[in-house]
Amino acid sequence: MIISFEGGEGVGKSTHSKLLCSHLEAQGLPCLSFREPGGSSFSELVRGLFFREGIDPMTELLMVLASRRENIGKMIEPGLAGGMIVVIDRFIDSTLVYQGVLRGLGVEKVRGLMEASGTWVVPDLTFVLDAPPERSLARIVPGDKFENQGIEFHRRLRQAYLDLAGEHRHRVIDSDRLKEEVSRDIIAQADLFLANTGSGSGHPA
Amino acid sequence: MIISFEGGEGVGKSTHSKLLCSHLEAQGLPCLSFREPGGSSFSELVRGLFFREGIDPMTELLMVLASRRENIGKMIEPGLAGGMIVVIDRFIDSTLVYQGVLRGLGVEKVRGLMEASGTWVVPDLTFVLDAPPERSLARIVPGDKFENQGIEFHRRLRQAYLDLAGEHRHRVIDSDRLKEEVSRDIIAQADLFLANTGSGSGHPA
Repeated sequence: MIISFEGGEGVGKSTHSKLLCSHLEAQGLPCLSFREPGGSSFSELVRGLFFREGIDPMTELLMVLASRRENIGKMIEPGLAGGMIVVIDRFIDSTLVYQGVLRGLGVEKVRGLMEASGTWVVPDLTFVLDAPPERSLARIVPGDKFENQGIEFHRRLRQAYLDLAGEHRHRVIDSDRLKEEVSRDIIAQADLFLANTGSGSGHPA
Repeated sequence: MIISFEGGEGVGKSTHSKLLCSHLEAQGLPCLSFREPGGSSFSELVRGLFFREGIDPMTELLMVLASRRENIGKMIEPGLAGGMIVVIDRFIDSTLVYQGVLRGLGVEKVRGLMEASGTWVVPDLTFVLDAPPERSLARIVPGDKFENQGIEFHRRLRQAYLDLAGEHRHRVIDSDRLKEEVSRDIIAQADLFLANTGSGSGHPA
């Protein structure tokens, strides 16, 4: 099972993927967690290049797919084969949203390149953490080239995630609340999903 | 005008691209020359990752296309717009041969990904330097993961270039000769091509 966390800058993806993993592991479900771009040692080096200023949107896409391709072969497939739940902080939806929508390459084109490069791996469950950018950006110290964009970029980012989040696997979570409340919602949804698919501890949500 | 140099390890691509540029510049034709993967400062960093051991063939492909994509926007297009002749040490044919044939992704698949990612730029003239690998490998100190492959790999490499070299733009050059003889052939062919296309100095070959 693959669970992804998606959403704009500062919405708490990293925090909540860690909290979910702690919960899963406390139930005896081993968890493999990483962020993208990044993850494997190779992919962390690719990440450094991905965030350089001034590179072309298509170059960004090719770099994030290279990072993902390594992660699929070196981390995701072995993790799944070993019975782990794979929890990823940003995955295919971020690529569709950032490179497809915000960088303007087009969602269909980006998806086509993912399919052609063996990097179109669809998670079983995706949490889209949603908050007004005025509030989520206040939580972080902007550092990278995306975080440094103006508020209008972040508004478009939020809307692009909401537009995309129409598939059965998506759970939009209001993350503009106390961390504990947000985490409780996420864990309840994950437990319910695991129980329904027979992958979990069998506890009802 | 774009001129590429292609061929296996140790056949003299780097030497002959420099010699051709010296000749062109001596005729008053400004030349922009670089190697792939690599070229722009970004692409040289990508090159370092491309040559790491143990990465997936598709990851290799995505990395070399990322390098090329930056070069197209940052070097090739501005160079051509400025009236330069662009001379590249390895280009699209190396990607078809290494990742498509030797690494087994398939030539059609690799070409499709190049077309979809805006990295399918066809040179005007391509020199395929050809020599028996037993002889060309003796010219170099093997260092990277391709050079370190056994002789059978290098035989397949040579054959793959010859199989590919059927387009009008290809000139197969016997590089198992004195450097001066090889260079004379290349320069004669380049001068002829430039004269025929009206791009050159107007000297007959």
